Amino acid sequence: MNKNMQQYLDKAQVLIEALPYIQRFNRKIIVVKYGGSAMIDEELKKQVIQDVTLLKLVGFKPIIVHGGGKEISRWVGKVGMEAKFINGLRVTDEDTMEVAEMVLGKVNKELVQLVEQLGVRAIGISGKDGALLRVDKKYSDGQDIGFVGEIKDVNAAILFDLLEKDFLPIVCPVGMDDDYRTYNINADDAACAIARAVKAEKLAFLTDIEGVYKDPDDPKTLISELRAEEARKLITEGYIGGGMLPKLQNCIDAIENGVSRVHILDGRIPHCLLLEIFTNKGIGTAILNDTESRYYYGE
Amino acid sequence: MNKNMQQYLDKAQVLIEALPYIQRFNRKIIVVKYGGSAMIDEELKKQVIQDVTLLKLVGFKPIIVHGGGKEISRWVGKVGMEAKFINGLRVTDEDTMEVAEMVLGKVNKELVQLVEQLGVRAIGISGKDGALLRVDKKYSDGQDIGFVGEIKDVNAAILFDLLEKDFLPIVCPVGMDDDYRTYNINADDAACAIARAVKAEKLAFLTDIEGVYKDPDDPKTLISELRAEEARKLITEGYIGGGMLPKLQNCIDAIENGVSRVHILDGRIPHCLLLEIFTNKGIGTAILNDTESRYYYGE
Amino acid sequence: MNKNMQQYLDKAQVLIEALPYIQRFNRKIIVVKYGGSAMIDEELKKQVIQDVTLLKLVGFKPIIVHGGGKEISRWVGKVGMEAKFINGLRVTDEDTMEVAEMVLGKVNKELVQLVEQLGVRAIGISGKDGALLRVDKKYSDGQDIGFVGEIKDVNAAILFDLLEKDFLPIVCPVGMDDDYRTYNINADDAACAIARAVKAEKLAFLTDIEGVYKDPDDPKTLISELRAEEARKLITEGYIGGGMLPKLQNCIDAIENGVSRVHILDGRIPHCLLLEIFTNKGIGTAILNDTESRYYYGE
Amino acid sequence: MNKNMQQYLDKAQVLIEALPYIQRFNRKIIVVKYGGSAMIDEELKKQVIQDVTLLKLVGFKPIIVHGGGKEISRWVGKVGMEAKFINGLRVTDEDTMEVAEMVLGKVNKELVQLVEQLGVRAIGISGKDGALLRVDKKYSDGQDIGFVGEIKDVNAAILFDLLEKDFLPIVCPVGMDDDYRTYNINADDAACAIARAVKAEKLAFLTDIEGVYKDPDDPKTLISELRAEEARKLITEGYIGGGMLPKLQNCIDAIENGVSRVHILDGRIPHCLLLEIFTNKGIGTAILNDTESRYYYGE
Amino acid sequence: MNKNMQQYLDKAQVLIEALPYIQRFNRKIIVVKYGGSAMIDEELKKQVIQDVTLLKLVGFKPIIVHGGGKEISRWVGKVGMEAKFINGLRVTDEDTMEVAEMVLGKVNKELVQLVEQLGVRAIGISGKDGALLRVDKKYSDGQDIGFVGEIKDVNAAILFDLLEKDFLPIVCPVGMDDDYRTYNINADDAACAIARAVKAEKLAFLTDIEGVYKDPDDPKTLISELRAEEARKLITEGYIGGGMLPKLQNCIDAIENGVSRVHILDGRIPHCLLLEIFTNKGIGTAILNDTESRYYYGE
Amino acid sequence: MNKNMQQYLDKAQVLIEALPYIQRFNRKIIVVKYGGSAMIDEELKKQVIQDVTLLKLVGFKPIIVHGGGKEISRWVGKVGMEAKFINGLRVTDEDTMEVAEMVLGKVNKELVQLVEQLGVRAIGISGKDGALLRVDKKYSDGQDIGFVGEIKDVNAAILFDLLEKDFLPIVCPVGMDDDYRTYNINADDAACAIARAVKAEKLAFLTDIEGVYKDPDDPKTLISELRAEEARKLITEGYIGGGMLPKLQNCIDAIENGVSRVHILDGRIPHCLLLEIFTNKGIGTAILNDTESRYYYGE
Repeated sequence: MNKNMQQYLDKAQVLIEALPYIQRFNRKIIVVKYGGSAMIDEELKKQVIQDVTLLKLVGFKPIIVHGGGKEISRWVGKVGMEAKFINGLRVTDEDTMEVAEMVLGKVNKELVQLVEQLGVRAIGISGKDGALLRVDKKYSDGQDIGFVGEIKDVNAAILFDLLEKDFLPIVCPVGMDDDYRTYNINADDAACAIARAVKAEKLAFLTDIEGVYKDPDDPKTLISELRAEEARKLITEGYIGGGMLPKLQNCIDAIENGVSRVHILDGRIPHCLLLEIFTNKGIGTAILNDTESRYYYGE
Repeated sequence: MNKNMQQYLDKAQVLIEALPYIQRFNRKIIVVKYGGSAMIDEELKKQVIQDVTLLKLVGFKPIIVHGGGKEISRWVGKVGMEAKFINGLRVTDEDTMEVAEMVLGKVNKELVQLVEQLGVRAIGISGKDGALLRVDKKYSDGQDIGFVGEIKDVNAAILFDLLEKDFLPIVCPVGMDDDYRTYNINADDAACAIARAVKAEKLAFLTDIEGVYKDPDDPKTLISELRAEEARKLITEGYIGGGMLPKLQNCIDAIENGVSRVHILDGRIPHCLLLEIFTNKGIGTAILNDTESRYYYGE
Repeated sequence: MNKNMQQYLDKAQVLIEALPYIQRFNRKIIVVKYGGSAMIDEELKKQVIQDVTLLKLVGFKPIIVHGGGKEISRWVGKVGMEAKFINGLRVTDEDTMEVAEMVLGKVNKELVQLVEQLGVRAIGISGKDGALLRVDKKYSDGQDIGFVGEIKDVNAAILFDLLEKDFLPIVCPVGMDDDYRTYNINADDAACAIARAVKAEKLAFLTDIEGVYKDPDDPKTLISELRAEEARKLITEGYIGGGMLPKLQNCIDAIENGVSRVHILDGRIPHCLLLEIFTNKGIGTAILNDTESRYYYGE
Repeated sequence: MNKNMQQYLDKAQVLIEALPYIQRFNRKIIVVKYGGSAMIDEELKKQVIQDVTLLKLVGFKPIIVHGGGKEISRWVGKVGMEAKFINGLRVTDEDTMEVAEMVLGKVNKELVQLVEQLGVRAIGISGKDGALLRVDKKYSDGQDIGFVGEIKDVNAAILFDLLEKDFLPIVCPVGMDDDYRTYNINADDAACAIARAVKAEKLAFLTDIEGVYKDPDDPKTLISELRAEEARKLITEGYIGGGMLPKLQNCIDAIENGVSRVHILDGRIPHCLLLEIFTNKGIGTAILNDTESRYYYGE
Repeated sequence: MNKNMQQYLDKAQVLIEALPYIQRFNRKIIVVKYGGSAMIDEELKKQVIQDVTLLKLVGFKPIIVHGGGKEISRWVGKVGMEAKFINGLRVTDEDTMEVAEMVLGKVNKELVQLVEQLGVRAIGISGKDGALLRVDKKYSDGQDIGFVGEIKDVNAAILFDLLEKDFLPIVCPVGMDDDYRTYNINADDAACAIARAVKAEKLAFLTDIEGVYKDPDDPKTLISELRAEEARKLITEGYIGGGMLPKLQNCIDAIENGVSRVHILDGRIPHCLLLEIFTNKGIGTAILNDTESRYYYGE
Repeated sequence: MNKNMQQYLDKAQVLIEALPYIQRFNRKIIVVKYGGSAMIDEELKKQVIQDVTLLKLVGFKPIIVHGGGKEISRWVGKVGMEAKFINGLRVTDEDTMEVAEMVLGKVNKELVQLVEQLGVRAIGISGKDGALLRVDKKYSDGQDIGFVGEIKDVNAAILFDLLEKDFLPIVCPVGMDDDYRTYNINADDAACAIARAVKAEKLAFLTDIEGVYKDPDDPKTLISELRAEEARKLITEGYIGGGMLPKLQNCIDAIENGVSRVHILDGRIPHCLLLEIFTNKGIGTAILNDTESRYYYGE
């Protein structure tokens, strides 16, 4: 057998190895929180979209939830506004909210464009469409930080209807309060609330870290697997801080509300999503409920 | 019978008079091109949304197509860019396109918000979602005016799917070419192409004029009813000029492609849409196909 | 703005005011007990049918239940039979039952005709069709009053199937016992049992009185709103008598079995049904469950 | 094998013989014009209903169309009216029409009752329900004979909807003209028009004669099978007269409009319908299209 | 009335008498265990298939479960293998299993052929198709008897899907264990497990005996009706032995798991199935739950 | 990046490359004629089943058609029968047909078993089930060769119903004539007839040769792509002989009846099916219609 043929057979082998994973997640909903470097680096961006599109095509039902991050700051500056912060949180006054919503909308349609380009039906919505995300005003230690919302209700029927019509929904985290005013929502919170509401099988966070560390300063303390109760214990004992704290609380929350598995993935690794789903390569940190085991097959 | 009661009976009478109209348009698609003053004046805006929402609730299937108009110019300025024009047409370079798409997105979600506030399920999409609007690059007398697109295909299935799921679709006129690049589209053109693609019963343009005049300088020459061939004759004979020319050509085009009736309405009149549909009050100019008569009932 | 235009705008305003009510009752079932003067006066009759047809067209699901009243007596006389009464109740022997059924059938098809004339799909059935109404023989203080039935079972599936096929069902109160013999049923009872069985949102009685009075001889004691328990108290304390007593008991019964609101309307007021549903004009007496408030909006 | 067992085996044999017929008419629509003695004799009536109910239960889709015949005359007399005739046709003035409709309604519900008693879902409608039968006024040799209608349109969707909901529709021949006035219709005409509109497989007339005779005075000339063109020839050559003439014309008409087979059965023979459908016993006269043969199986 | 006609009327009478039975079992699932002489005698075989096909055509949902019995032994010999037995049970080694599966498959398709010949859609499956029957290895008093399986799971969805597509499923009792190896299953056990899983209304065993006897040597002790608890008592008291013991245990088991009635029929009586279902002729032994009575109607 | 990681990324790359192919064949029917060495070698067999199962899981709708080949001969010998041949064709007398059907049934269920083991719903049927394959007797140069059938009708509804219920149908080539007698069918013919009847996108033959040669003795003359008309020309000019002749005629026939592409694959190459569908590696000979090009993407 010549070298070329061997190469082809190797390819066939990879596809065959994907079989049990494809089977396992058939018609399951997977919520992907898309953010960080993977949203900025053009090559990584293209790869994330390829990954999600492939998931859709082989029978899964992915939903993308994305933020706008640095792009919002860039535009706030561009229109000559100045950022204000309280407790390290951006104060979102009406003008800032307007810019943020515009930027999130722009990012949203760009993702739609990339998915459509791969031949899959995408639809970009915000939490206003169909009143998907209803919020209450959020305060930071009692201080008014403007139009920042806390989700109190997810109208899951909207997403089910779009999935039924074979759309890949791409959601940006903007919501409305009872007076139908616009609020910005933390994208991690939105992804988590949506995963709970649609009873997702899996929730994956694309981040800029390798995962959860017991000691953030020591790369060797990366934790590759955590039960929900272990995660809670880590928090209680003070090992977790910074941006990881609310993220991990979200993960625990999701697990306790019916999501079977949450992943904190390193979005800087190309195709980290595919690798996580189709191989036994453990990437980042997996938070599991009590009955799940870390690896689906082998190892 | 006291005065109060009489007032109530009068109200009942109005509702009863709406009966035959409600019946006639039951489950019919009505495309509303929303633009002009009715998009700027807050009171008029609220009234247009009330009108469209009512149409939805009593059994019609409205689709809103909107532009962004002056708001785009305002934001182009705000971010420190300068507008360029060729033959009176805005040159849409990549940066302008980016701002235009953001502004259209903002307007789009604002309309969603207003409809949702009235308790109706709305979804705001652009021509990128589900690849609804596919375009070719448009030239102005052979000159490159940037990312301005001419619609070559409308993916009507997207709108039918959303209507089936009981959404009121609100569409902003942005599309993609074969290389999936973003283009701005004239909102009148988009409304017309969509009306044709979904085989709408009716297409209504909310404008800032009273209708079509034989002599624009003489208000007495307002034409309240035009057959398609009469309209064509008016154009050939040079009576129609300015912004009205392409609009009227769009109307003729729509009529000849299956839309039964097109209306050029004066969007500055409160509830002009309701008045046109539910009463015999002739507003603006109606372009009809050969078998339609101006008034549905009476007069 | 000229006077004509103002008039049109007023019309638009009425339609707009109907918006929240149309929304509130969308796809809700409303049972209308149709009887009294509104069945005899040709103008009132036409108006009731217009009202119900409008309800159907704007998305509600009305069901009409009607009696035959004076028309039965007229025909019993016409064929040379004599009416017998026990305790003020008509004794319905076999011959009387035959005439009653024929008259009710005639009235039933006449209503169908009026609804069809307004372009809405109606179907006239009796409680025999699909065995909709199953009865036990009813006695009056232990005395045999013939073929007068007490409903023991409503086959709601029949009505759901007809509603699903977009019919407006018009029901006359005739039923069958276990031996499939024909019985007359009190139309108020039939309307109430049907409202319960289909879990109607609203049940409205068109009557020949203004509503419930604390003192029937004093028009000033008209009660415009009653909670179920208040109604029961009124009965216990002896304020309610005559034909109102069983009617009010029916209302309480309906409320306690899932109907949210029952109305005793004065059928002699033109369009009383529309006024009650689309405006805040309080007509007659509303019996409410504990969580409902008298006026849906404002006032 | 004892005598009892033999008897049981004979029974099994009859059921087995029905197999190919049951198969042949599975889900086919069979319109039965029910009239004549079979409507008066209580035993025959019960048997017709048993037959039709059995057809329904084994998978056919029967529709009954019935007249009121002698019962109408009886009630016209009962209420003290006098019958008038022109050319042997009853003049149906408004009062007569009212009585006729009442009597037809009574008969209709009585049939519903009998079918329901056998456990099958029946619904009794007239041509007014869902505007099933639309008519033009009919004249007799140019003379006004009152409210007698000629069918110009059958709204077959009504019947398809009821069949889909598993009802056995029982239709009485009353219709409406363009002004929604009530008309009496010849039941044979109604059955024929309905059979055409729903594209029935079979149309059966229950009559009081044995079938079509070449010479009505000579029982030996009974014709058991007729092609449509033969029937037409018989008419042209003057063999057919009296009430048989319009009936036979109806039959030819039905055959030429897609019904495969029409039967003129002797309704005085018990279970004539079952015998015709489930055995090779030739009853009455069969009018066939060109491709059908008289006996389905054997003989 | 001549003799011929009387004969026809008698036929009609038989069909009419079937009415209440047809009604009672409409859309009900009936599992028929087909075996014994009725599988060998060509005439009886044809009659069983006619019976089941008729049940299908008149609206029941039969499922046939069959064995292969003597045919398996014949082929085992034909290919030169020798039968081994432990405790009177055939030892099913791999080669025997291979032959058994082939023979069962042949018998299965032959039955399909016979049903198709009568114009009904049949599909022949084994317990491998759709993994319908999952088994554990069965031991006989602790001894290994080879590939003999005990059903641990029935995938009823397979049968519901085939019934929904209007197939008559014909099942041969072969299953797979957790390692997807092939096992033979006792056909009585398979029929019983399937009847439980699909919640059949009725389960009928075609056997070569007349029914259950209190004293097998005394034909007069045939029991025509047994409650489940009576059957259990008979077993406890030692009246039941031989092949009847597991069969009766299966019957009790089925009754206790939702099947309303189990019949042990004498398959040597022609059309025993039809007689049992359509007449009051009591054949063999009926095992009933506590609320059923032996005869559906009369007697 | 370490070696391990690179390996994983390579895997991801393979999956990503499959994207456009998965998309192209989404919900398309692919008929696979399974035969030759790939049916005998256990490893190849497992790989074919993996390939087909993967196709099913990623959204295609495969149908397997298989023969029994050498296994039939083996069993004919085993039961002591002697093979007879006319013109090189096996004479299929009744006894041979019985054995052939049994062997095909055994092979059929074995394939079901392998597919089920991979977690996909399979159903094994012959052409008797649902009367899928109806045949006429086939003669070889006028000589009687027994129960060998030529397909005259494929009941495609059976396959559509099974696909709709998410089964992977596995078909063995046995059919029935008008007298419902059993016939053997050439598996290539059956695959071709089925592909035509279900309007398959693709038909693939797994064979024991590398493809079509211009000169079978010269491996360098392997033809990798053929238009239908070219294939016909090759036949006319006498280049094609032996078993390839009918196979190629089948291919042309399929192409001319709506199948877009037929492949003659070398079943001895592991995963030849996957390689053909998911990569640009040209395997064997592709017969194309006029509008198709050999490679879907690139090269």
